[in-house]
Amino acid sequence: MAKEVSRERWRNEFGEWFRDILISAEIMDYRYPIKGCGVWLPYGFQIRKNVFQLIRNILDATGHKEALFPLLIPETSLAKEAEHVRGFEAQCFWVTHGGQKPLKIRYALRPTSETILGPMLHLWIRAHTDLPLKLYQVVTVFRYETKATRPILRMREFDFKEAHTAHATAEEAEAEVKEEIENYRKFFDELCVAYKISRRPEWDKFAGAVYTIAFDMLCPDGRTLQIGTVHNLGQNFAKAFDVTYEKPDGTHEYVWQTCAGISGRGIASVLIAHGDDHGIVLPPRIAPIQIIVVPIPYKEKGETVNKKCLEVVAKLKKAGFRAEADTREDVTPGAKYYHWELRGVPIRIEIGPRDIENNEATLVRRDTLTRETCKMEALESRLRSLMETMTREMRRKAWEWLEKHTFQTSSLEEAKQLISERAGIVEAPWCGDSECGQQIEEAVDARILGVPEETQTKPKGKCILCGKPAKTIIRIAITY
Amino acid sequence: MAKEVSRERWRNEFGEWFRDILISAEIMDYRYPIKGCGVWLPYGFQIRKNVFQLIRNILDATGHKEALFPLLIPETSLAKEAEHVRGFEAQCFWVTHGGQKPLKIRYALRPTSETILGPMLHLWIRAHTDLPLKLYQVVTVFRYETKATRPILRMREFDFKEAHTAHATAEEAEAEVKEEIENYRKFFDELCVAYKISRRPEWDKFAGAVYTIAFDMLCPDGRTLQIGTVHNLGQNFAKAFDVTYEKPDGTHEYVWQTCAGISGRGIASVLIAHGDDHGIVLPPRIAPIQIIVVPIPYKEKGETVNKKCLEVVAKLKKAGFRAEADTREDVTPGAKYYHWELRGVPIRIEIGPRDIENNEATLVRRDTLTRETCKMEALESRLRSLMETMTREMRRKAWEWLEKHTFQTSSLEEAKQLISERAGIVEAPWCGDSECGQQIEEAVDARILGVPEETQTKPKGKCILCGKPAKTIIRIAITY
Repeated sequence: MAKEVSRERWRNEFGEWFRDILISAEIMDYRYPIKGCGVWLPYGFQIRKNVFQLIRNILDATGHKEALFPLLIPETSLAKEAEHVRGFEAQCFWVTHGGQKPLKIRYALRPTSETILGPMLHLWIRAHTDLPLKLYQVVTVFRYETKATRPILRMREFDFKEAHTAHATAEEAEAEVKEEIENYRKFFDELCVAYKISRRPEWDKFAGAVYTIAFDMLCPDGRTLQIGTVHNLGQNFAKAFDVTYEKPDGTHEYVWQTCAGISGRGIASVLIAHGDDHGIVLPPRIAPIQIIVVPIPYKEKGETVNKKCLEVVAKLKKAGFRAEADTREDVTPGAKYYHWELRGVPIRIEIGPRDIENNEATLVRRDTLTRETCKMEALESRLRSLMETMTREMRRKAWEWLEKHTFQTSSLEEAKQLISERAGIVEAPWCGDSECGQQIEEAVDARILGVPEETQTKPKGKCILCGKPAKTIIRIAITY
Repeated sequence: MAKEVSRERWRNEFGEWFRDILISAEIMDYRYPIKGCGVWLPYGFQIRKNVFQLIRNILDATGHKEALFPLLIPETSLAKEAEHVRGFEAQCFWVTHGGQKPLKIRYALRPTSETILGPMLHLWIRAHTDLPLKLYQVVTVFRYETKATRPILRMREFDFKEAHTAHATAEEAEAEVKEEIENYRKFFDELCVAYKISRRPEWDKFAGAVYTIAFDMLCPDGRTLQIGTVHNLGQNFAKAFDVTYEKPDGTHEYVWQTCAGISGRGIASVLIAHGDDHGIVLPPRIAPIQIIVVPIPYKEKGETVNKKCLEVVAKLKKAGFRAEADTREDVTPGAKYYHWELRGVPIRIEIGPRDIENNEATLVRRDTLTRETCKMEALESRLRSLMETMTREMRRKAWEWLEKHTFQTSSLEEAKQLISERAGIVEAPWCGDSECGQQIEEAVDARILGVPEETQTKPKGKCILCGKPAKTIIRIAITY
């Protein structure tokens, strides 16, 4: 299989492929004069918009309401939660002047929005009837990354779909964390992206959280990419911002909060999971153009063929497909195939004079590049089933690839070996001690993603490093 | 007419009404700890979203492509167009630090995006085949306003739908200005907002533009509000950023640019144009809830009535209406009417036990508060025609009100008198001399909006101030 070989080859060329594809498929232009900031080009913007709509639909369905909070955070607000400010202040862009005048206090550009919601929740929440409060916003956030920036993968300005909730009890906050995890499962399932869900170790949780659950995907180069996080904030921010509610019995208690977020990496994950030598491959659900119709002109028949293609597009649009015809005259069919394959359009329809005679069309699937002939009267139903099949198979392949590159071992040497080969994700038994965990990270020269959240199976055997009885499994990987 | 009296009363109370309605109708909470920044609440956010969709549809239809450019502008970019930087540098928020480190050059938060596009257009545009380039983006912009800030009307952080285009010739740029004007007409027509279109005087044009065309609406207090602008930029920015293209004959020329923008005032304009003593009134096109169904419970029949209401809502939703039922049990029908009138829901349906017996429902229009009975089988078609009628009449009323408050005079004394009474917009003959124009502004203690763009009729008579032969009509008003 050419495809599989190509993905293996990517082990070394993935970084370059990803940078190049963003500009050649007209997704992002990263040549803006400020490092870590890029321009979303019209085609990329449409993909982004469809991905955003997906997460909006999912959050709306679980009763989260979309709102919009300001970008600027007074330094005094950011400083209210001690761990949070320690975690974020070195990553903030700081606004110090309005016009020529120095501001009385500095404003941070939001790196995340907990301390923006704080003062508002303090005003809004009075009684138990105000709870639960489930909000989300889709915004741009800023982090002054000191690591090497990379387009979409590590930006200084990037989009963030962040949910924020407040609850009356710890149990309700806990249930919300589970709901958010389910939401993110649905989201990545729709994108046909495979993931591992891990409870991050203590030393790698969100600054200010009680615990952090993260979604990671595996890139073709063997490194994992964090693509979504859900945090249980306990009462930490409620105490910092004095957000209390009156219980039915008249006493007051701090609210229990959660937050969850998916960055621009939500979009990157689709490009990474399915891309190949020909370009990106988009699941039909989020493709700006689902079907591209290419006329195969033949001598004097050009006009008839173009007309037929436009007719087919009009019919498909009416039936609810996002379809376009590529009737450019100065471009060969082959160049058109190249153009639309690069941009990941799920299905190509080719129509030539003989197809018209036979009342049929040729369909080509982007993921497998397989061809088939279809009678015109069966076109719509065949496209629908093809798109479903394609989505299902893209998802299955992504999961197969992830599982194939996930390894269980109880030997530190083997773990080291797998990591040094960039084989993928390594799962190993662990004693549960933080200090020992950080020593494992050093020993294998990789990061601990955390404890599997999908299953709670007790490991047999001993900690991979210290040899004490294992309490859990941990996942280890080289991370982006 | 209670409604008309109420709008006259607003002359004095409009500012207060607007501030109050934003929070009571759950549109914006302006209590964020930074001046000029507010929180869009879920209901307000939905209105905003629908308004944005409207302008997106209009721009998409004229071939403008949505993209997204960064927020941060290097000071060196902002400084490239001399007039532009003079006009904006005192209004910029400046980012000076990344983490603890001072940045090598300061970044401005975009007050507008011409100098953000500059370096990208320089990269993108090579040949005449790259033109025209028509882009737009929907973003948040920042201006360090020194005048008193007001929620939505004058914010330091606000939304901006900005179009940017580049063309091969001055004529094409001129034609694009006309297209943008038509687009904005369509937009405000859909919002049922009445407007005057004026060519701003030289001393009040956009910094860096050749000329500026502006849309102004008239608020109930007699002050005008600029709600949209279209600028012909000529080659000013092209020269500053070296954006040239190769012509078919092999020579090179700077591109011709335009830009156009509508801020958050696009949303404010709807609230202002139609609000009354009961709250806001939303045109059905942008109402998050178009129809609210309220059960009128009667003794033991409560459950039957609720069930019927939910059935009606399900049917209406299926037919494409945005409909909701308010089945809250601890709230009286009267309190529900108040609640949804405040929020501007276009049509209320009341259903009680007798209505069910008679197979009918009561419909109440939000704009006139008139009631009518409708047979259940006619409900959908009646709602559709009612929504059309309502839209048409809201638009007509807005225009009538604007025309009623627009005055023609050739007497400076009368102009002064009208302005001092806050009567509305005054149109008067003018010699066309800038110095004389600025003296008129001083004499009447108001601003010149500019020369009418809708009609090019030559005025008879003499300049209202200097007495020389008049060249044009000018519009004068107290402005926000």
